[in-house]
Amino acid sequence: MNSASSDLYHWERENLGYQAGVLTIAGQQAEVMAHSAGAPVFLYDAQRIRQNLERLQAVLAQAGLSHSIYYAMKANRFPPLLTYLRLLGRCGVDVCSPEELLSARQVGFAETEISYTGTSVSEEDLAVLQRHPGVIIHCDSLSSIRRLGRRCPGRRIGLRINPEMGLGYRMNRLLQYAGRKATKFGIYHGQFKAALHCARESDLLVEGIHFHTGCGYLTPQLPLWSQILEAGQRFVDECPDLRYLNLGGGLGIPLAEGDEPLDLSAWSAIISRQFGNSNLRICIEPGDYLVKDAGILVLQVNTVEEKGGTLFVGVNGGFNLHIEPAFYKLPLQVLPCRQPDSSLRRRVTIAGNINEACDLLAENILLPPVHEGDYLAFLNAGGYGSSMSSNHCLRGFFREYLLP
Amino acid sequence: MNSASSDLYHWERENLGYQAGVLTIAGQQAEVMAHSAGAPVFLYDAQRIRQNLERLQAVLAQAGLSHSIYYAMKANRFPPLLTYLRLLGRCGVDVCSPEELLSARQVGFAETEISYTGTSVSEEDLAVLQRHPGVIIHCDSLSSIRRLGRRCPGRRIGLRINPEMGLGYRMNRLLQYAGRKATKFGIYHGQFKAALHCARESDLLVEGIHFHTGCGYLTPQLPLWSQILEAGQRFVDECPDLRYLNLGGGLGIPLAEGDEPLDLSAWSAIISRQFGNSNLRICIEPGDYLVKDAGILVLQVNTVEEKGGTLFVGVNGGFNLHIEPAFYKLPLQVLPCRQPDSSLRRRVTIAGNINEACDLLAENILLPPVHEGDYLAFLNAGGYGSSMSSNHCLRGFFREYLLP
Repeated sequence: MNSASSDLYHWERENLGYQAGVLTIAGQQAEVMAHSAGAPVFLYDAQRIRQNLERLQAVLAQAGLSHSIYYAMKANRFPPLLTYLRLLGRCGVDVCSPEELLSARQVGFAETEISYTGTSVSEEDLAVLQRHPGVIIHCDSLSSIRRLGRRCPGRRIGLRINPEMGLGYRMNRLLQYAGRKATKFGIYHGQFKAALHCARESDLLVEGIHFHTGCGYLTPQLPLWSQILEAGQRFVDECPDLRYLNLGGGLGIPLAEGDEPLDLSAWSAIISRQFGNSNLRICIEPGDYLVKDAGILVLQVNTVEEKGGTLFVGVNGGFNLHIEPAFYKLPLQVLPCRQPDSSLRRRVTIAGNINEACDLLAENILLPPVHEGDYLAFLNAGGYGSSMSSNHCLRGFFREYLLP
Repeated sequence: MNSASSDLYHWERENLGYQAGVLTIAGQQAEVMAHSAGAPVFLYDAQRIRQNLERLQAVLAQAGLSHSIYYAMKANRFPPLLTYLRLLGRCGVDVCSPEELLSARQVGFAETEISYTGTSVSEEDLAVLQRHPGVIIHCDSLSSIRRLGRRCPGRRIGLRINPEMGLGYRMNRLLQYAGRKATKFGIYHGQFKAALHCARESDLLVEGIHFHTGCGYLTPQLPLWSQILEAGQRFVDECPDLRYLNLGGGLGIPLAEGDEPLDLSAWSAIISRQFGNSNLRICIEPGDYLVKDAGILVLQVNTVEEKGGTLFVGVNGGFNLHIEPAFYKLPLQVLPCRQPDSSLRRRVTIAGNINEACDLLAENILLPPVHEGDYLAFLNAGGYGSSMSSNHCLRGFFREYLLP
């Protein structure tokens, strides 16, 4: 790392760290990039995305599982990033809307490399799917099976099922896609026979089962992961023509100090134990796992001022650029773009430039002294940041860079 | 209303109600508008906006207060709506970013009709303010006073202060802009003398005091409103050259059944009691109060299906088009665009078309039987809907119509 300090920070890695005191990602100085962009900026480390993808594929291969990865585009749809993934040629893409489907096609993904996993699917959505006969479709309701069958008789489909168990980063309720409370996703077991019947009546061939049960799970949630796969087994057993199982995404990354990386070997061992002898292809739909830690958001400090006993650090971007801290209570780790020369730390709250009380990017965190004009980096900003951004207060402008 | 039913629904009013069984707003049939738009659609009743504005002005006039209204643009920036307000000629506009300022100018507001109330103000923001010397600026930090003074010596300003008390719809924490917990907004009393000194040193003349303490307050919060104005008094007393007081926005409207409209007479009486003899112009910055109940969002139902014991009604839009139900827990009232012919009601949950667990527009509400293809209207969608919308999952497309 050529770091001035002999110890690595816990977040440092190849291609991300201080070099001669300056935060550097993929060989680029974060503050130089932000300064030249002249706006809030997201920087994405392409090699990190590749490494994340290869790590996942290696562990699936080691477990002897035949597998396919579909990148969940909703995590980050920056066209250069999508193009990079396509050119890598190691994964397909999962989409959830007609526009996502067309974006995937536009960067070169073949129809057969695209899976469509939608919800509340409209006739307009189905019309686009009809024009793309090679795309893999996951139906999550009897209604969509019926309506798809009318348009595309003979088509092969997957059924998205609801295993009635959910998981997610620290079991955050907002991130659970299935669980005790009924969710809109997937077909419950009580309706599953009816769904299979409906597919047959609609001249659709069910060749896949899909389930996605939450976002951001780490090693402590793996026992639940195992139970979820067990719950999926009874759906699998009822489908004689099955060719693949799509286990969704949701693989998490460490977000806060103290989080450990997901134990991928334990994760794949669970898959292998449950489905290793099934001859089914295992499909995974990672979004955050591929892109979240590859991206940082860089903002410039414009105000440092104590108010009511709290030291506020005001920056040139707000919660509209990355809503996870404000609404999902997921932390973005903050660090200065210049390595501090002392170990002095102060408690600060990072305030965005939106006129809303909830526009805080980090609360009550320890930072080295920060001055107006400095740049701050927000780690783990590569997923669900730019993709969920809004133009609230007409403050939605930012730039994104793919760093090869 | 020419309503088939003899009783008015509690939400019905002039220009909004069932006519011959069809939901009609400003003379337009909601479902016809949505069908012709071919997309999720926001419909805004211009006359309702005018009535809301006139009601507010009438009550301030009756209280004998000299007053000005600045519409808070962040609630809804649809250019035709802004243009309508400018042509009405009864209010100015409050902006909080350079782009909002320029948008206000583009629809014809003069600089002197524009107030700028920003937070975490950058040098780039100040450069735009410098190019607009007539705009009223509210500084909310010593840092911004100092930096503005460097660029614009001699300029008149207002100071945004923090009265250390907050309020908001049902005291929702996300909507409180001041309170026991320190917030980023405004200058606390402990720093106020320093701020006045800083303004003098920076050759800026303080002629206004501004405070905004929360969003959506109704009559039950008026005792707190009174205390907040009292708390503002000590700031006012320290400013000899004051010409106006800006009391912010935050005036709420009924959102759920059982909410009563804000008692405007009681509200203005409180202002009058505290500041009626001050010779200060009273400025108000309503956003939601002007536009929220003037707007409806119309979505089409594509899926009606029971899952896990809950009847889900899937629609062609999601929480990315209107985030208040998902993130602020503010209700959007839902009704069918065709008047039900029976009194039968079922409990349903309205599910959007975004692949996220929190994408529910209404949970566990009573609705008449709904069928795939029907249109649903979401009331009180005129504020903080389109303005906070995102293109998440590339499902961000919608249309807006101003109905004269």
